[in-house]
Amino acid sequence: MAKRVLVLNGPNLNMLGMREPEIYGRDTLADIRSACAAFCEAQGWSLDFRQSNAEGELVSWIQEARGRVDAVVINAAAYTHTSVAIHDALHLLDCPIVEVHLSNIHRREPFRHHSYISSVATGVIVGFGAKGYLLALAALEAG
Amino acid sequence: MAKRVLVLNGPNLNMLGMREPEIYGRDTLADIRSACAAFCEAQGWSLDFRQSNAEGELVSWIQEARGRVDAVVINAAAYTHTSVAIHDALHLLDCPIVEVHLSNIHRREPFRHHSYISSVATGVIVGFGAKGYLLALAALEAG
Amino acid sequence: MAKRVLVLNGPNLNMLGMREPEIYGRDTLADIRSACAAFCEAQGWSLDFRQSNAEGELVSWIQEARGRVDAVVINAAAYTHTSVAIHDALHLLDCPIVEVHLSNIHRREPFRHHSYISSVATGVIVGFGAKGYLLALAALEAG
Amino acid sequence: MAKRVLVLNGPNLNMLGMREPEIYGRDTLADIRSACAAFCEAQGWSLDFRQSNAEGELVSWIQEARGRVDAVVINAAAYTHTSVAIHDALHLLDCPIVEVHLSNIHRREPFRHHSYISSVATGVIVGFGAKGYLLALAALEAG
Amino acid sequence: MAKRVLVLNGPNLNMLGMREPEIYGRDTLADIRSACAAFCEAQGWSLDFRQSNAEGELVSWIQEARGRVDAVVINAAAYTHTSVAIHDALHLLDCPIVEVHLSNIHRREPFRHHSYISSVATGVIVGFGAKGYLLALAALEAG
Amino acid sequence: MAKRVLVLNGPNLNMLGMREPEIYGRDTLADIRSACAAFCEAQGWSLDFRQSNAEGELVSWIQEARGRVDAVVINAAAYTHTSVAIHDALHLLDCPIVEVHLSNIHRREPFRHHSYISSVATGVIVGFGAKGYLLALAALEAG
Amino acid sequence: MAKRVLVLNGPNLNMLGMREPEIYGRDTLADIRSACAAFCEAQGWSLDFRQSNAEGELVSWIQEARGRVDAVVINAAAYTHTSVAIHDALHLLDCPIVEVHLSNIHRREPFRHHSYISSVATGVIVGFGAKGYLLALAALEAG
Amino acid sequence: MAKRVLVLNGPNLNMLGMREPEIYGRDTLADIRSACAAFCEAQGWSLDFRQSNAEGELVSWIQEARGRVDAVVINAAAYTHTSVAIHDALHLLDCPIVEVHLSNIHRREPFRHHSYISSVATGVIVGFGAKGYLLALAALEAG
Amino acid sequence: MAKRVLVLNGPNLNMLGMREPEIYGRDTLADIRSACAAFCEAQGWSLDFRQSNAEGELVSWIQEARGRVDAVVINAAAYTHTSVAIHDALHLLDCPIVEVHLSNIHRREPFRHHSYISSVATGVIVGFGAKGYLLALAALEAG
Amino acid sequence: MAKRVLVLNGPNLNMLGMREPEIYGRDTLADIRSACAAFCEAQGWSLDFRQSNAEGELVSWIQEARGRVDAVVINAAAYTHTSVAIHDALHLLDCPIVEVHLSNIHRREPFRHHSYISSVATGVIVGFGAKGYLLALAALEAG
Amino acid sequence: MAKRVLVLNGPNLNMLGMREPEIYGRDTLADIRSACAAFCEAQGWSLDFRQSNAEGELVSWIQEARGRVDAVVINAAAYTHTSVAIHDALHLLDCPIVEVHLSNIHRREPFRHHSYISSVATGVIVGFGAKGYLLALAALEAG
Amino acid sequence: MAKRVLVLNGPNLNMLGMREPEIYGRDTLADIRSACAAFCEAQGWSLDFRQSNAEGELVSWIQEARGRVDAVVINAAAYTHTSVAIHDALHLLDCPIVEVHLSNIHRREPFRHHSYISSVATGVIVGFGAKGYLLALAALEAG
Repeated sequence: MAKRVLVLNGPNLNMLGMREPEIYGRDTLADIRSACAAFCEAQGWSLDFRQSNAEGELVSWIQEARGRVDAVVINAAAYTHTSVAIHDALHLLDCPIVEVHLSNIHRREPFRHHSYISSVATGVIVGFGAKGYLLALAALEAG
Repeated sequence: MAKRVLVLNGPNLNMLGMREPEIYGRDTLADIRSACAAFCEAQGWSLDFRQSNAEGELVSWIQEARGRVDAVVINAAAYTHTSVAIHDALHLLDCPIVEVHLSNIHRREPFRHHSYISSVATGVIVGFGAKGYLLALAALEAG
Repeated sequence: MAKRVLVLNGPNLNMLGMREPEIYGRDTLADIRSACAAFCEAQGWSLDFRQSNAEGELVSWIQEARGRVDAVVINAAAYTHTSVAIHDALHLLDCPIVEVHLSNIHRREPFRHHSYISSVATGVIVGFGAKGYLLALAALEAG
Repeated sequence: MAKRVLVLNGPNLNMLGMREPEIYGRDTLADIRSACAAFCEAQGWSLDFRQSNAEGELVSWIQEARGRVDAVVINAAAYTHTSVAIHDALHLLDCPIVEVHLSNIHRREPFRHHSYISSVATGVIVGFGAKGYLLALAALEAG
Repeated sequence: MAKRVLVLNGPNLNMLGMREPEIYGRDTLADIRSACAAFCEAQGWSLDFRQSNAEGELVSWIQEARGRVDAVVINAAAYTHTSVAIHDALHLLDCPIVEVHLSNIHRREPFRHHSYISSVATGVIVGFGAKGYLLALAALEAG
Repeated sequence: MAKRVLVLNGPNLNMLGMREPEIYGRDTLADIRSACAAFCEAQGWSLDFRQSNAEGELVSWIQEARGRVDAVVINAAAYTHTSVAIHDALHLLDCPIVEVHLSNIHRREPFRHHSYISSVATGVIVGFGAKGYLLALAALEAG
Repeated sequence: MAKRVLVLNGPNLNMLGMREPEIYGRDTLADIRSACAAFCEAQGWSLDFRQSNAEGELVSWIQEARGRVDAVVINAAAYTHTSVAIHDALHLLDCPIVEVHLSNIHRREPFRHHSYISSVATGVIVGFGAKGYLLALAALEAG
Repeated sequence: MAKRVLVLNGPNLNMLGMREPEIYGRDTLADIRSACAAFCEAQGWSLDFRQSNAEGELVSWIQEARGRVDAVVINAAAYTHTSVAIHDALHLLDCPIVEVHLSNIHRREPFRHHSYISSVATGVIVGFGAKGYLLALAALEAG
Repeated sequence: MAKRVLVLNGPNLNMLGMREPEIYGRDTLADIRSACAAFCEAQGWSLDFRQSNAEGELVSWIQEARGRVDAVVINAAAYTHTSVAIHDALHLLDCPIVEVHLSNIHRREPFRHHSYISSVATGVIVGFGAKGYLLALAALEAG
Repeated sequence: MAKRVLVLNGPNLNMLGMREPEIYGRDTLADIRSACAAFCEAQGWSLDFRQSNAEGELVSWIQEARGRVDAVVINAAAYTHTSVAIHDALHLLDCPIVEVHLSNIHRREPFRHHSYISSVATGVIVGFGAKGYLLALAALEAG
Repeated sequence: MAKRVLVLNGPNLNMLGMREPEIYGRDTLADIRSACAAFCEAQGWSLDFRQSNAEGELVSWIQEARGRVDAVVINAAAYTHTSVAIHDALHLLDCPIVEVHLSNIHRREPFRHHSYISSVATGVIVGFGAKGYLLALAALEAG
Repeated sequence: MAKRVLVLNGPNLNMLGMREPEIYGRDTLADIRSACAAFCEAQGWSLDFRQSNAEGELVSWIQEARGRVDAVVINAAAYTHTSVAIHDALHLLDCPIVEVHLSNIHRREPFRHHSYISSVATGVIVGFGAKGYLLALAALEAG
């Protein structure tokens, strides 16, 4: 089935590849978008790939996705740990939601160990760098 | 006295009525606006009724209300539990502030039990669904 | 419909109006009873208004209300924060229960921030002084 | 030996069988009293079976038991979790004390997981419904 | 000046002298009453000395003291650690309040280390057995 | 009905009777087995009575019990407080599960106050020494 | 490159498919093994797929893997939350380690929210049922 | 050396001077901007002075500063205590960062005692009112 | 009997009467010394009255008291809350120890609510200002 | 106005420059004293610059400053985190107090994150190395 | 006297010397066994030196030691922090027990700071690498 | 090699042997000094053995040891649990540091379970009484 997939990226992910490659890898967000696009094209899926530094904008994009997309992949970055608003917005969706993190957040500061996204996500993929996005898309495949 | 009332609604309240009616009821935000407008008209009050998904926009609206409104009714939704910025903005006002929640937040997840709004509000009304807005307006009546 | 309403008041509320008007207001409990009686009479409802300093007596009154009243308004005062027994008694009722507090308990000592009543109440009204009782009764109106 | 047994029941246990049979079972307190009486009669023991909603009354009954009964079975219900006073009264007794709970309190709300009774009881029997009282009496048998 | 003194004793203090003399001493409550009476008589003060196992009764006695006594000495026993109701009742008084404990509660179980009475008392006297009551009375002397 | 009962004993219970009789009593595990056997024989039940020091072995025995026994009595000893694996294994069973402890664990070190077994057990019997096993078996009787 | 992959399964995973399919899905461990074998065969990798209920055995298997396998996929089940020993054993390996959980552990009991495995794993995949194992293997692919 | 300095101000700082001068002083944000401008001009530095109520906008401004400014002075106000996103954005910069607070946050509510900014700042200046900004600029001077 | 009494005063008590009379009263330490001297003289007791700002000096004075004094009255002031060393020194004494505080420490900052002295003191007297020292001496009287 | 300034340094600051220059910088305490002296001379102020390893000595120096100095700059080093006695001594002063730390204590061990000095200081300057002392002096300038 | 000494080693200690020599040193477990054997031979003592990855096996070995050995040296490794079962087994012994750790566990992760062994050990030796075993044996020498 | 060893003893250790021999043993500090001296003499080492009740003096002695001693053995007694200043002083040394405690602090009050010394010590020896000092010296031997 032709899926419509929304991939959402939170604050500072537009800066990817500029610093701390030992934590986040050397890929830029454009690289990740390309890889996701290639994957989706191969599947015959459509892709909507976005990034925002604003919590409210992310909330609005999730609301707009309601009834219009078949799956959401979300790396909420810093808002993962602080945003009840994104939690509530995701809770309004009926489609599968995959949470992704580039770095292994369980190896980092304690304030990154709790996620407000996980409890409303279908599943979580953590620590595989840019490849994590492709694993998230693979998780959405039938079967 | 003809009051100028500002009713503020936080993130995801624009989605009201679309999901989980057992928690939030079946009323939409437009229904609530209509009910509030009817109440205010009957009282001879003016009503400014707004909703935003953005914390910063809510902060700005509260700042602008300073000296221009006679009372604020606020359902900050998810920001209730995370926003020191809205707490600080409300603290700058001199008029009565009524905090409203549609659902009984004390029956829900622990992270919804604490409110940054309550300590700067005059009073709090929780758990009466859409009717809670009218009770909030009634609380502003003289006597 | 003619409702039978029970209004219950917990310890020290019989002393209302005697001290700390800046926290509790100047109304006495007799004043509040009169205002409630007037409201109920206007609605064609019957009112049973009581106060007790004894946790066990409050528990017994709640038990006796089972099947005999259509709604309970309760300001459990100090027992709000310590009484699992009142929590359990209220849990046995099928009718709406409105929790009321005269002062804004969220602005006071930390031990007043938790309520054993809220999780078995329909809704909660906090911080409006004597007027809070009338808002509670209004919350019971149809529609 | 002919034992004198006191069975004490705390707040709301007089309402047993009226609600939430999936938690507390369908037996009424009268049913439990009958079963205990039958057990005691078979053993040649005397039974004093009481219930109170008042913490102070329970404390007084325990005090009066001092030197007059050979064993106490107590289901302090809600006071289990809040009453230091009952803890202290039981501590004054020299005879065996068996704590009973109808429901498995460890499967319920966190505030029901701690008991002020357990640390002054000989033993604790939890989760067997009305049968728990008979197990408590059986625990008092010689050998 | 001829003071009117109210000495209040909480739950289980009527059992004093019956058990655990190494914690509470060998004096009975009647012994303490006699010693207090002798002290007051020597000062030309009147004494009202009471004990109750019921939290609500203690609350009512404190309320009745308002405007009728010049000082309160209170050993709330177990209710020291659990009663917000007694805290609130004492808070309504204008006269000096002395909190007394027979044993050194800081050497006992952790749940005895916090007192709801201390924050509304003038001062606290702990660990001197029956003599603590006389020190409390002495603390009320002029100068 | 002829029940098949499995009685499981955790680490160090094979050492029973060797030390600290004031905590655990003087009975050996063989004594307890005999008493249980006598009880079961009288009921016409079969008994499988085992002990292991290995968490994994206890898990495997519980798994094997699935569909083959009608009830489990378990004293998991030290693993009570640390084993999520035993919790999960018991959760797979459909039959009644009775948790037993020889000593009153609520009077001992804080790390013995929490049990991973209780939340998957039907009921819990604590503090009656060897007799607790017989009470557990009695709890399984019809009626 | 022909990888040698070790897939380790912890306690109770041998019971998969027998209960709670809404949490763990309907696949049995044999089904998962088959799917993994198919994936590995397609890649030209060798697969060693094991399950144990014993913490010590899992530790030994991990030790033996040192220098003999190119990657480890581990679903430690209950030991995820309690085993420092498995944490330490994994820490001795130099190859990639992928932690897998069938269910979304962040939606379950609080004691399942912390993992001793995550901080020594390369990445974590949670909530995708049996498919999570294949995603884990995919995560090991070059590129 | 001619420095390019970015001074960032968080939510509600545009309201400075309007309320609570005993906490924040009487200076307006325009006054502070003028004082900073004078200081920078005297040093031959350029100044970019901004304020926003929106977390996302502050994040974006910090990102844009990367490689374009030689130092950042930031008073994140309420976001100091809640924003992981600003923490992460600042972490991407290579230049000195000085955190400023007008009031002594350690004398205020507990939720103002923790700062997400401090751990990525070079240094922190707290409690000197408007003068704190000049001290922050002085801290950037060579030597 | 002629007692030898040591009265020890901790840091900053030499500044008594200089500031915050609403907390500590207007008496200077010299005033308190005079009052204590008068009391002791009347009893025929000897008095050694000292003050030090140094924790180590207080420890040494307590050590020297061993076998040379019949009672210690100690107001350790700030060291009350931080000094295990003074706790340990007092623990070496065999004579009665009375802890005194001028102010009611339970009404002050949370860090003043815990005392390392109380658990090694005979009794504690709190909140009576300078008079507390005399009550402490009175507590040492026979009978 | 000619200010009299007291600069106090706590334990181990006499060792400055000997180890861990990456944390504390390369300046010795003598260097800092010289820089402070130069600053004060330029202002026409007198400087009293001291260091002590003894908590009690620091307390005494603060007491002696009462009425004799116009401002205190204090780097209490390790005592920052443990000394209620220094907190109390500083609380007795009427003049401005500036707390200084060489390193950014918020980036170090958790036990260095809390300061007993901050709540009695006018302001706090953290993380600027030796320069922090000069910023503290600058903070004392008029205007 | 000829002692019989049992030296027990917990999980992963069989891997000693293979990784992280900066934490555990370069000695293998065989090296440690040799050193212990040499020490015991010199003393005329017998040595039983064992290692296991299985908690249950360690428990059984400790049980078997009862009455058969004169002292136990135990490095429980990871089980130090999680095993109540080993705690209970050691508690059954009457002989001296010395707890050893190769690394200084107080410098490592917080979950390694608590030991279930320490409270049943005679003494503890931490941080001296392989030499710690010899110090433990030396601690067992007479005098 | 001829080592210069400094042995430091904290508060109240000068009282050793006077009380609680069941906790600390019967040896006096002079006995321990003699034993240490004998050990050092046998090794050809010099010994500097000191005791102080003053935290600041201990800090100064540690500072003076820098570059003048080859090893430090320290029993900081009560300051173990409260002194960041001693922690910081020890951190400035480059030589081995052995922490010693006479009693097994893990069997005592919770406030003795944490040590500020351990994280800057090479190793820790606990619970062997006076012999612990000799084990500490033995730990310093080559090999």
